[in-house]
Amino acid sequence: MSDIIRPFLEPTSVAVIGVPRATGPDAYNIVENMLDAGFSGTIYPINPRAGEILGIKAYSSILDIDGEIDLAVIMIARAEVPRVVWECVRKDVKAITIVTQGFADADDEGKRLQAEVLQIARRNGTRIVGPNSWGTANPFRNFTSGFTPLVLQKHPIGLIAQTGFYAGQSQMAGKFLDLGNTCDIGFSEGLEYFENDPETKIVFLHIEGIKNGREFVKAASRLSKKKPIIALKVGRGEQGAKAAISHTGNLAGRDEIYEAAFRQCGIIRVSEICEFPDLAKALLNLPLIRGPRVGVITSTGGAGMMTIDILEKHGLRLAQLSSAALDRMSAIAPPWQSLGNPADMWAASMIEGHPLNEVVFTALDSMLQDDNVDAVMLLFPAFIVAGGNESRLLDIIKRSKGKPVVGWPDNGAGPFDKPITALEKAGAVLFPSVNGAARALSCLNQRRLYLEAVCPAPNNDTTC
Amino acid sequence: MSDIIRPFLEPTSVAVIGVPRATGPDAYNIVENMLDAGFSGTIYPINPRAGEILGIKAYSSILDIDGEIDLAVIMIARAEVPRVVWECVRKDVKAITIVTQGFADADDEGKRLQAEVLQIARRNGTRIVGPNSWGTANPFRNFTSGFTPLVLQKHPIGLIAQTGFYAGQSQMAGKFLDLGNTCDIGFSEGLEYFENDPETKIVFLHIEGIKNGREFVKAASRLSKKKPIIALKVGRGEQGAKAAISHTGNLAGRDEIYEAAFRQCGIIRVSEICEFPDLAKALLNLPLIRGPRVGVITSTGGAGMMTIDILEKHGLRLAQLSSAALDRMSAIAPPWQSLGNPADMWAASMIEGHPLNEVVFTALDSMLQDDNVDAVMLLFPAFIVAGGNESRLLDIIKRSKGKPVVGWPDNGAGPFDKPITALEKAGAVLFPSVNGAARALSCLNQRRLYLEAVCPAPNNDTTC
Repeated sequence: MSDIIRPFLEPTSVAVIGVPRATGPDAYNIVENMLDAGFSGTIYPINPRAGEILGIKAYSSILDIDGEIDLAVIMIARAEVPRVVWECVRKDVKAITIVTQGFADADDEGKRLQAEVLQIARRNGTRIVGPNSWGTANPFRNFTSGFTPLVLQKHPIGLIAQTGFYAGQSQMAGKFLDLGNTCDIGFSEGLEYFENDPETKIVFLHIEGIKNGREFVKAASRLSKKKPIIALKVGRGEQGAKAAISHTGNLAGRDEIYEAAFRQCGIIRVSEICEFPDLAKALLNLPLIRGPRVGVITSTGGAGMMTIDILEKHGLRLAQLSSAALDRMSAIAPPWQSLGNPADMWAASMIEGHPLNEVVFTALDSMLQDDNVDAVMLLFPAFIVAGGNESRLLDIIKRSKGKPVVGWPDNGAGPFDKPITALEKAGAVLFPSVNGAARALSCLNQRRLYLEAVCPAPNNDTTC
Repeated sequence: MSDIIRPFLEPTSVAVIGVPRATGPDAYNIVENMLDAGFSGTIYPINPRAGEILGIKAYSSILDIDGEIDLAVIMIARAEVPRVVWECVRKDVKAITIVTQGFADADDEGKRLQAEVLQIARRNGTRIVGPNSWGTANPFRNFTSGFTPLVLQKHPIGLIAQTGFYAGQSQMAGKFLDLGNTCDIGFSEGLEYFENDPETKIVFLHIEGIKNGREFVKAASRLSKKKPIIALKVGRGEQGAKAAISHTGNLAGRDEIYEAAFRQCGIIRVSEICEFPDLAKALLNLPLIRGPRVGVITSTGGAGMMTIDILEKHGLRLAQLSSAALDRMSAIAPPWQSLGNPADMWAASMIEGHPLNEVVFTALDSMLQDDNVDAVMLLFPAFIVAGGNESRLLDIIKRSKGKPVVGWPDNGAGPFDKPITALEKAGAVLFPSVNGAARALSCLNQRRLYLEAVCPAPNNDTTC
């Protein structure tokens, strides 16, 4: 069944029906975007009023083409779409992306046209993405059928959305399907493709509404055991649910039902697109966390204090440090300081005179070696002055045997404002906010709990 | 009473007790930081083992100085602090900042020393900031007494904190007080100073614990009628409350009590420092919102859908557009599109061929002229291509007679990725996330509701 999606992402020959002769920003010329992306398959532009387009021979109709066609992309006036789909069926094209808007997303006539198109396609087993789709894209094949340009990046992240908007916004999307109105192909077909796709390690879903819940849960449960799924489901409230109907003609459905389905499938839910890159970074680069107990290292009590509430909000908690860890850190701190968690290591440097990076290394190693600690968060870690310490840091993190180390860099003024890459080179992951770092740890924890519940022999990996 | 704070922020002569001869990042040399900031007052470095420091004559003791001293900053070993405070009292210094750590933030000996210091100061009416303070700063006088360098910026934002950390992190702090352990001077004195300070328009508080709640509520209520107050109160949960004691020796207190006090004083609460700059930007640059009804203009249904849930989360809602507004927008949209709110204006441009900026201007003006709309949010507003449209945009926003316009720019790929300043020039404010934009509108709404409740004649301004 995962072959259904293949022609939409890995076509070798594509007919584009309704290509303008114009090019540039306002032309929405799909063939131009394909060529800019470096697509090396065969392109057949269809435009009855053009002999050639961008140096490629143009055809009046798909029926005039001799060769086989993996995928047809349609972007013409909606009234013409049924006729053209019919021609595609006659040409035995098995995959069609309909970009044109104005179907179930619009008025009654649109709904009628969408039903007609589907009926025509089904006669021949032809499958449809859309209508009202931006297109599909695959950076690993330099392929895009999008009507706006997209910078293709080989990220191991599969994105299935009901808008083209997220392809650019998610910042990390690799292969991309905009399902649009989902008149035929829905989320489950996409999930099945990504399940067996070696180029995809994480799947991100933008959902307005799901038509076949049972199929979705089946496909998502199977995929989720192998790869993490993150979902943004919009239309939570009443107003959003109403708006979903006019965007893609989908019923958003009661949010509790989605919530329960997501929980069952181990899907991690976000509420805004901007949360996604942090979670993807964590899932791709960090080991899973073994529990919710976090050690916090800081150079300022103020940041430490702020962090405690944020950890609690994300279902995490401060680790109760062992006396071994506390003794080791206290040995470099002033005698009057009673170190705890968060461990404020500033005085160890400023008052006791130990070099800042030594202080951080000691605290980090003490916490990572502590059985009471599941992960370490470094606040203000830019106070590790870079240079020559990467290997030491790498050793310390390696010795932890798979505990995630996250950090929040200093964005303020002061002597510590140069970007520090030593931590990231050593396997830690930095986040733009403490909230983002905590959310990432919480996501790793949620993934671990899911895998423990569903896998026969769970390990510390992100997969069963 | 606001004179209490003046010497801490506007001193003309400062003695710094415990200045090292060393300079540079690890020296924590307060005199060096003062000179780097361009402070033009008189500086008296005190160091018995140095003849001069950074070209300035050094003294063995404050008692050796002839001139008057507005402020003494103490940064020596804690055991020496009582003796030195005693010398300050003999010299009749009325304001002392104690930077030294290891007092109520530390062990029993520290608590005893803090009590001793306070007792000495009180004999002479000398007031103390700290101990365990980073220092104070005033960009309008090129003054800092901080032990780390700070880039002074003339922001109209007063910051009162219990850590030095926020001075750099808040990105927008102007005048700054780090109260540290608040052994003597607390929040209310700072609030009184800022109430009458013409250089401060907004006050931001970072609170670990408040000792005199009654004084705080009195001062905050008075200030709040004139200027917005935003507060980050940490130590919400149990773990955080415990940690507050070891950071500044303060009892965090039950969170519900703070919540109630904040509500009474109209204080806007945030939960992480990173929320602050957005709110400050909104309060400084936007009119107050007259109600919770938001019009949303988008070029993509996907972003519009996402926004609805976010608005609801922040207590806002989608405006029910008037038929006049809908008719005007529909006139440029395809006939099959039933425009609503969010208004997806993409098809008006892509399908109907109207220039993108014309489309946005029409939608913006339609919504701003609509009595059912209290504010407009522009998603993806980078699709207003810059150039020559600033005056038009300015007119449209002016015509709205004080409705806030906020935007979320496109950070994705595509042809719209150049930064657009036209909107900001015209008085709109852009935010890095939809959540940030909604939170800002919600903050303006909260401020309006507060002023309506407490002011005799509320207007649309941010003050009574």
